[in-house]
Formats: sequence, C-alpha cells, structure tokens
Amino acid sequence: MTDSARQRPLGRRQQFCSQCGHGLRVEIPAGDYQLRYTCNACATVHYENPKLVVGCVPVHEGRILLCKRAIEPRLGFWTLPAGFMELGESMSQGAARETLEEACAEVVIEDLLASVNVLSAGQVHVFFRAALPEPLFAAGAESLEVRLVAPKDIPWGELAFTSNRIALEQYLLQRSAGRHFVWTGNSI
Amino acid sequence: MTDSARQRPLGRRQQFCSQCGHGLRVEIPAGDYQLRYTCNACATVHYENPKLVVGCVPVHEGRILLCKRAIEPRLGFWTLPAGFMELGESMSQGAARETLEEACAEVVIEDLLASVNVLSAGQVHVFFRAALPEPLFAAGAESLEVRLVAPKDIPWGELAFTSNRIALEQYLLQRSAGRHFVWTGNSI
Repeated sequence: MTDSARQRPLGRRQQFCSQCGHGLRVEIPAGDYQLRYTCNACATVHYENPKLVVGCVPVHEGRILLCKRAIEPRLGFWTLPAGFMELGESMSQGAARETLEEACAEVVIEDLLASVNVLSAGQVHVFFRAALPEPLFAAGAESLEVRLVAPKDIPWGELAFTSNRIALEQYLLQRSAGRHFVWTGNSI
Repeated sequence: MTDSARQRPLGRRQQFCSQCGHGLRVEIPAGDYQLRYTCNACATVHYENPKLVVGCVPVHEGRILLCKRAIEPRLGFWTLPAGFMELGESMSQGAARETLEEACAEVVIEDLLASVNVLSAGQVHVFFRAALPEPLFAAGAESLEVRLVAPKDIPWGELAFTSNRIALEQYLLQRSAGRHFVWTGNSI
C-alpha cells in the first residue's frame, strides 16, 4: 500500500463516539490499511466519505438561470442551483429540489452533463441539463438574487466554484457541437 | 414543503455529539425544514448524506472480471469490483483502487458507464468501463474467488446487487450497439 493511501484525509475532526459517547482514537482498524476515527469502547469505526452535490443548468429560451449566493462559502458569487444530495432522493430529484429551494423555480431534469471530483472539499459535484418551461423564479433563502442570463452575459469572473465553470462551459460547448456527453474529471 | 421531504430518512442512529459528547436530539434546525440529529449543547447539526460506491467493468479480450464476495452483504454472490469512495481520491481512482483490493488486478479506467441511485441503501453506485491489459488477478481479502467470464457465462441469477446487473447489461448493450452513453436511473 502506498504512503498516499495511508495519508488520506480523515474528514471532519471527531472527538466522541456517536454510538456510545466514548472518546475516539485515530488508528488503523483490523483488516483496514488506513487511519480512521475508531471507538475502543464499542468498536465502531467512524468512516467519512465524499459527499455528493447535485445541481443543474436550467435553460429557458436559450438563457441560463443563475443564483447569487446569500450564504458562505462564496457569498455574493454566482452559482448554478446545486446543493448536498439528501438521503431518500435520487440525484435528479436532488437537483430539482435544490433549484426549487434556491431559485423558487420548477425545472424538468434532463440528462447528465458533468461529474466533477472536488478533491479539496471531499465532494463530487454532479450537474444535469434541465428545462425551465416557464420563466418563473425568485431568490430563495440561500440566494441574494436569481437571474436568467444569456450566454454572452455569464459572469465568468464572479462564479462561485470551478465546477460551475466546467458545467457552464460543457453546456455551451456541447450545445454548439450538437452532441451530448458526460464530462468527468477533477476540479483544481 | 411536502410530507415526503419531512420524512426523509435520518441515516444511521446517532446518540451522542461527535464534537462535544452531549446527547443528541432529533429536531428541525433553524432555517431547515426536515428532521436532523442536532446537539443542543454545541449547536452542531449532524447531517447524513448518500455515499458513493465506485466500481468498474474490467474487460480483457472480451471477457469481464467478476468477484465472488467473501463478506456480507451478499456473501457468496458475484459482483463487479466496487466499493466506497474515499476522501482524497477521484471516482476513477477509487474504482481502480477497489479493483486492486478485491481482484488484485491493475485496470485502466475509461469512460463513465452508469450511475445508479440506490435509494434503499442511501448510496449512488457509479461504474466505469475499464481495460484489464494483462489477465493477472487473484482473490483479494474481500473476495472468495475472481474470474474472467465470457458474456454468455455471466451468472445473472447470482449477482450481488441490482446495480451490477444494470452495469453489465449496459456494458454489453452499448458494446453491441457500438455507442457509448451514461445510463442514469434508480435501482429498485
């Protein structure tokens, strides 16, 4: 096993066992090869894994719906509607729910557009193409402002996350190429 | 907000705060609309989100590498190499790592094949096409046996998970159609 595998991040610091309340240790459990938060009292291993962020590129008559963030991180920057996937929903249901929450907009989720590994954040960002049948939207609680923008007016320098840029670039590039595929790769 | 949104699963039962050790409650935090494990002592909200399982369809000269599971769940059933994505790796790195761990095989990960929402397990299973350049493999610690099987010999009735069936069906269907795309949907 390589050193880099042993040195994978442990995730958020955990001090106490969520099952029994005992103090946790950082050690390599039996049968494993990397460090984990483990409980010596009840033998629970507290794994932490990457989280899925699901979102979409909502399009109405060629224009794209963007939200200005009202919350940290990246407050005041522009983002595609997206957020943490919840238990009990599919990726596309999550993308539609986030769009309703952040932009008060009802979209029809279409095909997968991009999946972006955001290693520094321990996240994978997944974006779908989506139709916004009616131009009805408003700022949800997590948005300062929501706007339909033409491709030429996308605020490239004020986007919140690299994954937003990748999804928007892929959407426009694939639209002009007349060909759909799923971009997969890492965000720096 | 719909009742179904309020009734999303909370995930694994948590009794104590991992940050301060205080007993947890189940309540709707301020600004949220669904039940979460929350700590009234240090105000931490303990979110639980779906986990990513990453795997691949490793192919050598038209045959596919399958592993017979040595662990629960589904001990004794056949699976594509796959497992929980770890922090610090990309989805394709995770798929290659799992193949090395379960089948002692070094693969070259290719394009995305399928992403399957497994709602009942709170998981998303992502599979890639992969090349196995050399027919070198062996049972890893989590496998009883590893085998290269021709499409006609796939043990359809003894597959461990529905997502395995979907990935294998898509691999074969797309190979015979001479066309690659990413299947996205739910596993029953």
